Amino acid sequence: MTDWRNSGAYAAPAPFRLVAREAKPEGSVVDIRGVQVGGPEIVVMAGPCSVEGRDQLLTTATSVRASGARILRGGAFKPRTSPYSFRGMREEGLELLAWAGRETGMPVVTEVMDTRQVGTVSEHADILQIGSRSMHNYPLLEEVGNLTTKPVLLKRGMGATVEELLLAAEYILNKGNGRVILCERGIRTFENATRNTLDLNAIPILKRLSHLPVIVDPSHGTGHWWMVPAMCRAALAVGADGLLVEVHCNPQEALSDGPQSLHPDRFDQMMKELRAVAQSVGRTVAPAQSAEPTCSGGVWG
Amino acid sequence: MTDWRNSGAYAAPAPFRLVAREAKPEGSVVDIRGVQVGGPEIVVMAGPCSVEGRDQLLTTATSVRASGARILRGGAFKPRTSPYSFRGMREEGLELLAWAGRETGMPVVTEVMDTRQVGTVSEHADILQIGSRSMHNYPLLEEVGNLTTKPVLLKRGMGATVEELLLAAEYILNKGNGRVILCERGIRTFENATRNTLDLNAIPILKRLSHLPVIVDPSHGTGHWWMVPAMCRAALAVGADGLLVEVHCNPQEALSDGPQSLHPDRFDQMMKELRAVAQSVGRTVAPAQSAEPTCSGGVWG
Amino acid sequence: MTDWRNSGAYAAPAPFRLVAREAKPEGSVVDIRGVQVGGPEIVVMAGPCSVEGRDQLLTTATSVRASGARILRGGAFKPRTSPYSFRGMREEGLELLAWAGRETGMPVVTEVMDTRQVGTVSEHADILQIGSRSMHNYPLLEEVGNLTTKPVLLKRGMGATVEELLLAAEYILNKGNGRVILCERGIRTFENATRNTLDLNAIPILKRLSHLPVIVDPSHGTGHWWMVPAMCRAALAVGADGLLVEVHCNPQEALSDGPQSLHPDRFDQMMKELRAVAQSVGRTVAPAQSAEPTCSGGVWG
Amino acid sequence: MTDWRNSGAYAAPAPFRLVAREAKPEGSVVDIRGVQVGGPEIVVMAGPCSVEGRDQLLTTATSVRASGARILRGGAFKPRTSPYSFRGMREEGLELLAWAGRETGMPVVTEVMDTRQVGTVSEHADILQIGSRSMHNYPLLEEVGNLTTKPVLLKRGMGATVEELLLAAEYILNKGNGRVILCERGIRTFENATRNTLDLNAIPILKRLSHLPVIVDPSHGTGHWWMVPAMCRAALAVGADGLLVEVHCNPQEALSDGPQSLHPDRFDQMMKELRAVAQSVGRTVAPAQSAEPTCSGGVWG
Repeated sequence: MTDWRNSGAYAAPAPFRLVAREAKPEGSVVDIRGVQVGGPEIVVMAGPCSVEGRDQLLTTATSVRASGARILRGGAFKPRTSPYSFRGMREEGLELLAWAGRETGMPVVTEVMDTRQVGTVSEHADILQIGSRSMHNYPLLEEVGNLTTKPVLLKRGMGATVEELLLAAEYILNKGNGRVILCERGIRTFENATRNTLDLNAIPILKRLSHLPVIVDPSHGTGHWWMVPAMCRAALAVGADGLLVEVHCNPQEALSDGPQSLHPDRFDQMMKELRAVAQSVGRTVAPAQSAEPTCSGGVWG
Repeated sequence: MTDWRNSGAYAAPAPFRLVAREAKPEGSVVDIRGVQVGGPEIVVMAGPCSVEGRDQLLTTATSVRASGARILRGGAFKPRTSPYSFRGMREEGLELLAWAGRETGMPVVTEVMDTRQVGTVSEHADILQIGSRSMHNYPLLEEVGNLTTKPVLLKRGMGATVEELLLAAEYILNKGNGRVILCERGIRTFENATRNTLDLNAIPILKRLSHLPVIVDPSHGTGHWWMVPAMCRAALAVGADGLLVEVHCNPQEALSDGPQSLHPDRFDQMMKELRAVAQSVGRTVAPAQSAEPTCSGGVWG
Repeated sequence: MTDWRNSGAYAAPAPFRLVAREAKPEGSVVDIRGVQVGGPEIVVMAGPCSVEGRDQLLTTATSVRASGARILRGGAFKPRTSPYSFRGMREEGLELLAWAGRETGMPVVTEVMDTRQVGTVSEHADILQIGSRSMHNYPLLEEVGNLTTKPVLLKRGMGATVEELLLAAEYILNKGNGRVILCERGIRTFENATRNTLDLNAIPILKRLSHLPVIVDPSHGTGHWWMVPAMCRAALAVGADGLLVEVHCNPQEALSDGPQSLHPDRFDQMMKELRAVAQSVGRTVAPAQSAEPTCSGGVWG
Repeated sequence: MTDWRNSGAYAAPAPFRLVAREAKPEGSVVDIRGVQVGGPEIVVMAGPCSVEGRDQLLTTATSVRASGARILRGGAFKPRTSPYSFRGMREEGLELLAWAGRETGMPVVTEVMDTRQVGTVSEHADILQIGSRSMHNYPLLEEVGNLTTKPVLLKRGMGATVEELLLAAEYILNKGNGRVILCERGIRTFENATRNTLDLNAIPILKRLSHLPVIVDPSHGTGHWWMVPAMCRAALAVGADGLLVEVHCNPQEALSDGPQSLHPDRFDQMMKELRAVAQSVGRTVAPAQSAEPTCSGGVWG
């Protein structure tokens, strides 16, 4: 392990090559059907932790779209600490997510947990997410590097250093897929006021060491919905290229992670604040859309 | 230890009373000779890690004052991990610091490490700093609560939880001194890309649980000067009431903490950025002053 | 996450069922071709970090067998932080390991990293190891629970709590494979004197909460060969049912983890010490065998 | 901070001098009125967390003495996280402790928290304890180095590295007091099954790097009385020179730290086990004394 602490960090000979800033000094932009992550716009990805059903998903998707989200998130295959927890709607969830993305005009991002699912998930998702628990799953990293050219959202392991995150990305690039987005989502520390300790220090370090875009997930990073707006503002100010935010129409009845999910009204209010902060650092957040529902199912009526 | 993680945090019965938000829902403002911490203005405290000499100190003080700093920081009694490191100019440093504060019209903040020094430090300093290593020094907390009415800047211990920081502040208020400013300065984690892990999550939690003002020290929190501007922007966006920043005219020759000290030119540039971020969250940072030196010693000529 | 700290730990309603001590109060014994883990004998598993070649492997295997090891360890598929590191001899390594096990009369344990390899690894290995980086790989846990009845050695994730380790084991038992051995191998902390912080506290907790056997890997847990004998003695004294130790005939030229590998001579000396400690807690370690080589390849001659 | 992890640890140029093993290769023995810490005998220090009263103290002291403890521990000045917790009997507690030590023929160890108390505590105590929260209190370290020649028991800070512990000891030796005993008592980690994570890895490292004796406090290190015997056995096996154990006649009504205090009966049983483990590593633990009470107050009658 390189000790950045002593060596002055940024000056040490890096153990990675393809992800290094030197390989692409101007920075990478990952384009997802016209949405660009790593450019001047800070891209907000939002949606429920889990896909729970047709109505729940479309209502949330329509709402976050109206508030300015550009990409829809939703879990179909859920890694859960206990085998007895709700583990997602799986293939059915994938299909619902893709449908909701089409209905609302948003690309979708969802997690892939198993090398054997990479093909299936690639068919339905626009971005493949590698979750925190899978960051060290090297066969999976190689499979998403090898089997697909779709973008990969790679989350930092909750026990992983910044350097290990970059080396995990190197596995993917080394197999030929250069469209990787890094994601800080909190690390394990002794502090128990938060679910994890969202490590915003990682953003300037990753931007300095690597050309890859970096986004932040404050929902998992803190575990408290009431902290999400403040941490989103900080993420923008510190230099993140995007956000990943959990939104649920009825957080208290969410099948997973309710306590960290924002209600759409609060999400909308937060997006307004974020536009001001983005501007103060010379960037933008997409404007709110017409609130008129785009779905055919009459969910809003 | 209260487990905020499970209990929904903010709802748990708190083990502190005097520092609790409920005791003063509108929030505390600490006034230091007209500079208000906890009000609409975000107060920047800046200066060298250690007071090293007359010229070094006045040059830096004049410069940070010109860039908009409101309070001068400087170490006279330095807690050092090794007994063989430079440990400060002590009484002479205190006098120099007070002098530089008068010359530049800034209140000064400096650390007190020993119960027996509280009287002396109180005579020269406008704010008494309790350092990270002393947060658990209960006799010292009681002494600054008891012996002085000067404001106290209380830094979080590098191995202390947010709750323990609040209980340390409770010690001070319990002895009668209510003018306490809390300071997040980084915690110990497994991540070694930074000297400490600056925990910005602490800010919204502290603001929710307590009425006390909260500032952030990104110099110690990261250990890298090049990270300081980004983390300062984030600190403002997340809701901090102030910043504590190390600035040195010649960081490479600083007697302590050079690698984390900003050069005055970079500090000046950072202050411009911070004004924009502060405005985006409805607050202000003091404007730059005339760059004309105020010192009598002709340091700049 | 259950907070054992506050609740008195052992008394809290556990989120696991099949692995709970209550499900089998007398404790589980896992039998691997006559070697029993969880019984009165403390079982030592030893061998090189990686299978590097025929001679290296047989020399080491013969030697550890002579010193009293009962099971041969060796990596064929190696999870490595960098894609550019040596990643094992793979299928060829598996075959060599199985061969060396037959030659020396020892069951073999090796890591499986990919759901698609479970079948192949099961054919050659007597125990399937789930490594630290895979503890949260739920599809893999289910596959070793489902597809094989061979014993599984489940290592604690370097960022995982004791409770999460037990829930990972629950995934395996829940799919029908009850032959699980838990392994403590060090966690991530701020301390950088060791590669990881071997957490021996986990042993009495795991033994209290669960009926599964527990072993300790001090090689990965500390990263320093010279610490291994002391930590092995401690592991026996604290109640571990076995040890997993890296031994290499030429540690300075090992293709992986040389600095934490014991030379066979030191391993032999350590085994003598361990017999005394085992006896002091009412257990045994297998006696040294005849030092005469059992291999047919004439490696020693 | 020296990175022992990469540099091969033990070979790096050490930042300490007086405490280094090289300064006294044969190791230091600290003699406390005939009880030798650092010699062949493993010394057990036991007693209540806090001195609560005459009977409580003498009963416990008599009992642990009968079981083989050689030194009596007891807190008079108690550092507590909350100002509202019981903070000790202070001067009265010191006098009671010294009295109980005389009555039972044991030297006593108690904590000193404040530079201004060093004189008073030195008058009553045979060993001055510097607690975990004070390890970084450099004025206090210098005061116990300067003002007294009595032995100092220096506990590792809960957020401090092994190197920092050694540098804290260096402060004391540098002021002229060479009679320092180091104590591992658990560090802060993400694991919440224990109050702290007792880091037994520290023992072989400290013994390699320094000539000072090292003891272990499993009561604070784990926070659970039922873990104490197992961790004590491990501490002996790993090479500790002594133990510091909390014992209370009525743990459920203890004014502090009841959940981690052993009942005297369990302590007695543990001591028997420890004699066997000590013997297995070539050392001894003092034999049980006559169970006949030595106190004059008729507590047992």
